[in-house]
Amino acid sequence: MSKSFTLAEQVVAAIRTVVGAGPVRLHEPSFIGNEWLYLKECLDSTFVSSVGKFVDRFEVELATFTGAKHAVAVVNGTAALHIALKLAGVKAGDEVLIPALTFVATANAVTYCDATPHLIDCEARTLGVDAEKLRDYLIDHTEQRAGQCVNRVTGRVIRALVPMHTFGHPVELDELLAVVHDFNLALVEDAAESLGSYYHGQHTGTFGLMGTLSFNGNKTITTGGGGAILTNDINLARHAKHLTTTAKMQHAWEYRHDEVGYNYRMPNLNAALGCAQLEQLPMMLDSKRELFKRYQSAFAPVRGAKLMVEPEQCQSNYWLQTLLLDADQVKQRDLVLETTNDAGFMTRPAWVLMQVLTPFKGCPRMDLAGAQSLSQRLINIPSSSGLVPVVS
Amino acid sequence: MSKSFTLAEQVVAAIRTVVGAGPVRLHEPSFIGNEWLYLKECLDSTFVSSVGKFVDRFEVELATFTGAKHAVAVVNGTAALHIALKLAGVKAGDEVLIPALTFVATANAVTYCDATPHLIDCEARTLGVDAEKLRDYLIDHTEQRAGQCVNRVTGRVIRALVPMHTFGHPVELDELLAVVHDFNLALVEDAAESLGSYYHGQHTGTFGLMGTLSFNGNKTITTGGGGAILTNDINLARHAKHLTTTAKMQHAWEYRHDEVGYNYRMPNLNAALGCAQLEQLPMMLDSKRELFKRYQSAFAPVRGAKLMVEPEQCQSNYWLQTLLLDADQVKQRDLVLETTNDAGFMTRPAWVLMQVLTPFKGCPRMDLAGAQSLSQRLINIPSSSGLVPVVS
Repeated sequence: MSKSFTLAEQVVAAIRTVVGAGPVRLHEPSFIGNEWLYLKECLDSTFVSSVGKFVDRFEVELATFTGAKHAVAVVNGTAALHIALKLAGVKAGDEVLIPALTFVATANAVTYCDATPHLIDCEARTLGVDAEKLRDYLIDHTEQRAGQCVNRVTGRVIRALVPMHTFGHPVELDELLAVVHDFNLALVEDAAESLGSYYHGQHTGTFGLMGTLSFNGNKTITTGGGGAILTNDINLARHAKHLTTTAKMQHAWEYRHDEVGYNYRMPNLNAALGCAQLEQLPMMLDSKRELFKRYQSAFAPVRGAKLMVEPEQCQSNYWLQTLLLDADQVKQRDLVLETTNDAGFMTRPAWVLMQVLTPFKGCPRMDLAGAQSLSQRLINIPSSSGLVPVVS
Repeated sequence: MSKSFTLAEQVVAAIRTVVGAGPVRLHEPSFIGNEWLYLKECLDSTFVSSVGKFVDRFEVELATFTGAKHAVAVVNGTAALHIALKLAGVKAGDEVLIPALTFVATANAVTYCDATPHLIDCEARTLGVDAEKLRDYLIDHTEQRAGQCVNRVTGRVIRALVPMHTFGHPVELDELLAVVHDFNLALVEDAAESLGSYYHGQHTGTFGLMGTLSFNGNKTITTGGGGAILTNDINLARHAKHLTTTAKMQHAWEYRHDEVGYNYRMPNLNAALGCAQLEQLPMMLDSKRELFKRYQSAFAPVRGAKLMVEPEQCQSNYWLQTLLLDADQVKQRDLVLETTNDAGFMTRPAWVLMQVLTPFKGCPRMDLAGAQSLSQRLINIPSSSGLVPVVS
């Protein structure tokens, strides 16, 4: 591509090469399987709500797909995180380590437990928590007291670590597992974006005490709104189901609840959609990988930006295809965003970092140079599985 | 009916007279309108989640139906209450007056604000908050400090009153409006059960600062899972929409959130179902009223139990048809429940009172003799709108 083209023009041309003329949305769902059939079946049964076979089936099939022993379907990924954090023992006054670069739900869920997000830097290789920097930071800033990791500055217990698999790319789990082991932290994986992503052959969300998924409309598969908690611990799974269904004790007619619970169950109507979507997931993942390959070719000659590639020994679901601008191209970001969107190709930057948001300005944090650099350079480009023919 | 029949046998016979042979569920939804059409339209549009026309339409039509100026659709009635309480100014350490006789969501939502439920007695006429007893109690146990109602015993601010329209029967709103005025309390109506119920010609849920609805699967109309906040205050409505959509500020691509928000929006898929259900609501209300009349005839000769009738100058939606056993029949309750359920007619007692539940045992409360008596004597009987032919 000629040097006379701006980066923005090159990006538009590369996207157009792959997806054709616009307008093209960033990510839209694809309903080409049994979605229609199962929704009708659900409606005909009249069981659209808290009772019905699709919720049970969706949970079993999610567990099967991810390899988790148990899955609990809930109303969205935020609710899943809230309950997972509670069950990980996060209490009022605790701190929870989360990446500075994440969707706000990760931080919000911590506050729902009356705990404080403690912001961790991210690395360019995975876009997630920088394990090495985290270890050094914890060595310098925490101490163990009675088997708990205490923040020396605030005096508060750091209870858990919540890495997030950004845009589907797995974080460095081996190193993070070592960190949580060495510092007595619970590991809860925010796998909202990484259904179908694997770290060393094992599905993301199944490494920690619990993992959480999201089936929002912009995710790889959708239930309209929905999420799930994954765990290998039967007691945690039972407790999660109990807490997410108002903590009602089983009885033919009595309404007795033994703790403060939540109305977080996934309605059967949404689970019906989920069952149909799960059947399509392998094909969607193939399509998204094929889309990545086509983008890879199209962006190879582009100077000033690189397409994000899955980390080594990992398999990304390539939920959102991502450009990382070179450091000297930071000032071009907004022009690239404007030009692509004007051309009908929906693109967007990474989320505003957590420490920049009003509610989280005062949160404890380490040096966040890595996340800051990434947040200025990341651009998501159209990523729907429907953009390339489904490989059957 | 001969005196040789037990109360349980009389109840079974009366129910059978109206609904025919069992099995009959307590309340099941009816999908005889455009439910299927709108779900298909929603799926075909691919907008099943956070974006889509059905949410906007559902909100407009809810406002029109109830006469509220604004309606904000959310993921369920519990979420609606949570946000309404927050917007009513309920803060950590506050107390909120709620009836002892209610579904646990009312109490749970208070705790989500880190506030404490303060339990109020109920009266037999409406099954809801006993306004007279409440006024006397507040006179004796609270004082005004700087325009706030302070509990003299706990020293905490009592911020709000949340009456609940039990089984669809409106509480005594005129008297409660006077109480909240005189004691500087916010009024938030838990109208989860009373869509289609009117107090002196005005729809329940529209009298207080805010009201909340539920569209759970067992409600008069359902969205699978869903709820709504009603208010006449445009600023409260805007803030409710903002808080329930992660407090994201509007921008073409930037993800900036200006306060701790919630993922509480109703998915478009569920709103599609809701739009179709709302079209059927007038007919369903007619059917439920007709069912009440038939039960009224059938139960007229039954000795030992009375069918609950809407309070004077009120119009109940008759969500759940309700028997109130005579005081001397309390010991027959479980036998009535067992006999009816064994006969295939699903019945259930009122919820276990809040002060009996483990998480709320320690909550401040007044004398609850009225609620205690009611909770031992109430039995809901099959109430689906589909049990009698739809009046067109």
